[in-house]
Amino acid sequence: MDSSKVWQADRLAGNDSSVWVTITDMVRKTGAINLGQGFSDSPPPQYLCDALSKVLQSGNYMFNQYTRMYGHPRLVQSIAKMYSKLHQRELDPMSEIVVTAGAYESLFSCFQGLVNPGEEVIIIEPFFDCYVPMTRIAGGTPVFVPLRPDGTEVKTSADWKLDPAELESKFSNKTKLLILNTPNNPLGKVYTKDELTVIANLCIKYDVVCVADEVYAWMVYPGSQHVRIATLPGMWDRTITVSSAGKMFNATGWRLGWSVGPKHLIKSLMIAHQKAVGTCCTPIQEAVAEVIDVEIDRLEQNPGQSYLNILPNVELLPKRNKMVDVLKAAGLTPVIPEAGYFIVADWTKLGVDNTTFNDDSEDPIDYKFVKWLIMNRHLVVIPVSTFYGPEHKHLAENYIRICFFKADETLDAACQVLKSFQSNAQT
Amino acid sequence: MDSSKVWQADRLAGNDSSVWVTITDMVRKTGAINLGQGFSDSPPPQYLCDALSKVLQSGNYMFNQYTRMYGHPRLVQSIAKMYSKLHQRELDPMSEIVVTAGAYESLFSCFQGLVNPGEEVIIIEPFFDCYVPMTRIAGGTPVFVPLRPDGTEVKTSADWKLDPAELESKFSNKTKLLILNTPNNPLGKVYTKDELTVIANLCIKYDVVCVADEVYAWMVYPGSQHVRIATLPGMWDRTITVSSAGKMFNATGWRLGWSVGPKHLIKSLMIAHQKAVGTCCTPIQEAVAEVIDVEIDRLEQNPGQSYLNILPNVELLPKRNKMVDVLKAAGLTPVIPEAGYFIVADWTKLGVDNTTFNDDSEDPIDYKFVKWLIMNRHLVVIPVSTFYGPEHKHLAENYIRICFFKADETLDAACQVLKSFQSNAQT
Ligand SMILES: Cc1ncc(COP(=O)(O)O)c(C=O)c1O
Ligand SMILES: Cc1ncc(COP(=O)(O)O)c(C=O)c1O
Repeated sequence: MDSSKVWQADRLAGNDSSVWVTITDMVRKTGAINLGQGFSDSPPPQYLCDALSKVLQSGNYMFNQYTRMYGHPRLVQSIAKMYSKLHQRELDPMSEIVVTAGAYESLFSCFQGLVNPGEEVIIIEPFFDCYVPMTRIAGGTPVFVPLRPDGTEVKTSADWKLDPAELESKFSNKTKLLILNTPNNPLGKVYTKDELTVIANLCIKYDVVCVADEVYAWMVYPGSQHVRIATLPGMWDRTITVSSAGKMFNATGWRLGWSVGPKHLIKSLMIAHQKAVGTCCTPIQEAVAEVIDVEIDRLEQNPGQSYLNILPNVELLPKRNKMVDVLKAAGLTPVIPEAGYFIVADWTKLGVDNTTFNDDSEDPIDYKFVKWLIMNRHLVVIPVSTFYGPEHKHLAENYIRICFFKADETLDAACQVLKSFQSNAQT
Repeated sequence: MDSSKVWQADRLAGNDSSVWVTITDMVRKTGAINLGQGFSDSPPPQYLCDALSKVLQSGNYMFNQYTRMYGHPRLVQSIAKMYSKLHQRELDPMSEIVVTAGAYESLFSCFQGLVNPGEEVIIIEPFFDCYVPMTRIAGGTPVFVPLRPDGTEVKTSADWKLDPAELESKFSNKTKLLILNTPNNPLGKVYTKDELTVIANLCIKYDVVCVADEVYAWMVYPGSQHVRIATLPGMWDRTITVSSAGKMFNATGWRLGWSVGPKHLIKSLMIAHQKAVGTCCTPIQEAVAEVIDVEIDRLEQNPGQSYLNILPNVELLPKRNKMVDVLKAAGLTPVIPEAGYFIVADWTKLGVDNTTFNDDSEDPIDYKFVKWLIMNRHLVVIPVSTFYGPEHKHLAENYIRICFFKADETLDAACQVLKSFQSNAQT
């Protein structure tokens, strides 16, 4: 086009390339074994799909048309019922809940709804990487503080810790939000009540809103317990808790999530949501409401039957344990996750010769390794430096993230690849 | 909360109340006959719902998980096939199309992706009201130019016209976008090729991008013809065309839309979309792709069987004609729409005594009438001043917008209400 103008808005600067787009392209080209992105190749519970089919064939045509912008009435009722219990307070379905296009759009609405240009957002590393562009698009400045492996004897995700003094040093009078992701992606760390108390007290002291991204809350393994920071003293009024139906019910493609919080904060999210997306998919909302109602009953009457218990204990735990064994057998020391479906491990123990990467880009060494692994061994994992800001990438460059919520055949194939390094090293 | 901070981000200022929220609340309270919002109470085509049920029961679990961020591969192929024909050029599915959460989120992505603070957006009145907050949230300034009824003998939406000199006077070196909505909501106006040529030439002269909101393109009545501004000389490179699966297939609750345009513009929308919503609902995308493929075949081989022809000619036309008759019988002079499912009419002909509104708000008189109508006659319509900027509201204060895509019983009930004014006036 014959134009002297720059068309793209400045707020999008720096987003032209992304690890995810590059890796996804490489996956498509190589057909590699994909333990990269966070979704499973196994089915969601059949009754979820059945619930949606039922809605479609119900003869109630209104389920195909626009519903309430801030959340389908039946769904916000169901969410209120479920989360009133979890938050230990009576939630108002109409003013304390907003339903969004995935937890992702809830996060976007937090930044758009609450952050002004020049304000700061504290982001704990490693972080779900969209927090940074979302902060920047709102004109905010991300301020990073790392979880660090605590000593050399790191065995589980609980061994990655925040330094309270370092955390406090990041607060200033410009701080608007702190983003907490518990259970954490990529580590699988479940913050303890003590750890959360430190964070909560700082949010109160510096008058900051906490966005608690708790999408992996229903995937906690035995031995750990998920604590909601919103339930700590003084925190309800300054916490937005973000959840994902996609993660809860193993249907990430359904794109439904929600935020729960006090009216004075949720109101801003509602406006931001309404101006970006308007309203969410009605039949999906009706079906998810149906399924939540079923789960509420099961959790009360027969918890072993609840998918929300089956998912971590029956579906995921054996896969986690299998992946831990595979990684150990391949000579790696995995950081055993307390929750979620990711595991991180120190790839440098594989004994690969870095010079073979033949990659003179500026990319961190873990990213170079991952590109090499995809092209040469047809295995996709994610470099953990992706989840750190520029200053602290070096803390994570030895790690890769592996998604283990995959069919056993896929895990076995990955296992072969990883074990092949060991035999190479031994020869 | 004990806080001295203002939590809400400044970009949301002015959005605390909206006509839509107020009216929706009144509907809920009164149970009034709803000819307000733009959706139907009749079913979408059965094969649409069946397509989604089939996807859910297909055994392909991947249809429940995340798909490509910029659009599900099968869907962008189908859209490319359909729109290559409509745009008279071969579209690249991967770079010239982005799939969004409704046409609504496509519009949001246009503003977020292209508009910087301080830049101007030309908006033709009457306009789909979200254009204004979306402009403001991006930091842009809306610049309004009205369609005006051309003389007193206004019979159809074609009689509402732009003044080319007035339109040109709105362009400046700050202008980034012009938003064109054809067919127009609320008027039902279908811009002629001559009218579009005037707009196109100004966009070229002033180096401006045209966002063509064409969600009603598949609801044009006999006698009018929808012309895509992107097909005019020199316009492909500077036009984004926005479409809605929800409007196309009478399933507004499914929340799926897309934008088509040149790679250099779509790229910015892709980034904006990816950072706000991430990816759209996979099963919905797969089902819509299935249905588009069916329609492509029907349009080629048996156009009379295509829902895209059945919708305007079989479903909507009789309803439009019925509503025209009702309005005439009630003593009103409706502006007969050339497309869409809205009709505007001069309510002052009903002979209501304005003093009975008993409303000392600052609201425009049509909005006062509508509130009175809902509370006292239990009929919901929309005041047309809503679709004008502050300066030009007076041009539309005599008009109400009526949605006629409703079951015959609903239209009959509305008819009773409207006719009752006439008999009152006669006594
Ligand atoms: C920490 C975290 N938050 C939010 C999301 C997005 O969830 P949803 O799929 O509901 O948008 C993800 C997805 O991977 C995640 O890892
Ligand atoms: C002119 C116009 N554009 C866009 C939309 C939104 O379409 P969708 O439902 O696909 O988001 C509407 C809905 O009423 C509309 O009238």
